[in-house]
Amino acid sequence: MPSAALVIVGNEILTGKFSDENGPWLIKRLRALGCDLVRIAVVRDRVDEIAAEVRTCLAAADRVITSGGVGPTHDDVTFEGVAAALGVGLEERTELTTLIERYGIPLDAANRRMATLPAGAALESDPAVSFPVVRCDRVYVLPGVPKLFRLKFEAVSAQFAGDAVATARLFVTESEPAIAVRLTAVAARFPRVDIGSYPRFGEGPFQVVITLESRDAADVAAASEAVRAEMATITLDP
Amino acid sequence: MPSAALVIVGNEILTGKFSDENGPWLIKRLRALGCDLVRIAVVRDRVDEIAAEVRTCLAAADRVITSGGVGPTHDDVTFEGVAAALGVGLEERTELTTLIERYGIPLDAANRRMATLPAGAALESDPAVSFPVVRCDRVYVLPGVPKLFRLKFEAVSAQFAGDAVATARLFVTESEPAIAVRLTAVAARFPRVDIGSYPRFGEGPFQVVITLESRDAADVAAASEAVRAEMATITLDP
Repeated sequence: MPSAALVIVGNEILTGKFSDENGPWLIKRLRALGCDLVRIAVVRDRVDEIAAEVRTCLAAADRVITSGGVGPTHDDVTFEGVAAALGVGLEERTELTTLIERYGIPLDAANRRMATLPAGAALESDPAVSFPVVRCDRVYVLPGVPKLFRLKFEAVSAQFAGDAVATARLFVTESEPAIAVRLTAVAARFPRVDIGSYPRFGEGPFQVVITLESRDAADVAAASEAVRAEMATITLDP
Repeated sequence: MPSAALVIVGNEILTGKFSDENGPWLIKRLRALGCDLVRIAVVRDRVDEIAAEVRTCLAAADRVITSGGVGPTHDDVTFEGVAAALGVGLEERTELTTLIERYGIPLDAANRRMATLPAGAALESDPAVSFPVVRCDRVYVLPGVPKLFRLKFEAVSAQFAGDAVATARLFVTESEPAIAVRLTAVAARFPRVDIGSYPRFGEGPFQVVITLESRDAADVAAASEAVRAEMATITLDP
């Protein structure tokens, strides 16, 4: 089953200038693709912080996606960070300088930065994107602008596809402290089912939402039945 | 100037079951307090991943906030993770078992977990919260339920207060590739001003948003003037 991790390069997120749209979108998209997202980090526009986080993500996941920091300005340092993470240098790519000129963008020192990639990067072309997706080993370097992030992710999304996840949600009318011992016992009986317990206050006629998931739908059904047998649940309209 | 980092413990966020509300809220709240947020990570409900991330955040920031994983169920492992990060054991606290009993919660094995803290944790009481805030060294361990996260953060928010940040935003009608060389030169002239450049498409009669910030308002004003002198900007209604 493929796993992924997301590095959001974004002073603008951490300082509240823009809210992050790419994390929430990617969470749902990877879910639909059957890919496990194991980690998200938002880091500053600094080469050392990007490099360290990319290394952490490479150790934790099969594929790493970065968001942001790939434009022509002084605060765009993601290519440098990814190169440092991978221990490679940077090289200007003529495939990209050619595209930059074709689109009428001045090929000055700043804009050449957009064509200066970690050595050995793969350029994944797709009819839907005017610049190819840059993939460095297992790291997909995507732009931060939400519209472009989505377009470019879709150009490579097939590489993130896995098996569908079976899920269930149960709404418990007892409190979490009241059910915790019983729930722990159920979780121990179904080690292959990921069971979550989330107390909620004032959201409806329930006190806890129990979530269950597994790649095996029969396991989810059996664990759900066990939860229902052990504690008071109600059915909500979907 | 105080700095902070946020660790969100949340399988439920990474798998799309709940969307994270605490990150966006804390970004704005720390900003208003004058505290620099330098890093956010969302990790799974796993002791080793929580411990590693808390260590990373302790190295990057003065204060670390964790969100989630402090309830009585099997998936609540944040106290174990923070203890591992700090290299201390766990100990049951009679101040908390007393409170648990006072509130009529059964003092069973599961609920005792809520009173079993990293050794040496400080309990910060406040009239607004029924359980004290748990602080382990420089790590503030807060619940994930948004309403409780906010209440408990406010109980300790004075510890995050710093000097106000001066900011400005400029809307540029030229494209980012067209201005990048000039903007880089302005940024080099004002090293104490954090200047960000964000291309936007179809959001208004501008192509780039330039953000400027510093603890020194005069620096921001001078850098803004320099940007305006170098490129075509427009004024938007606030």
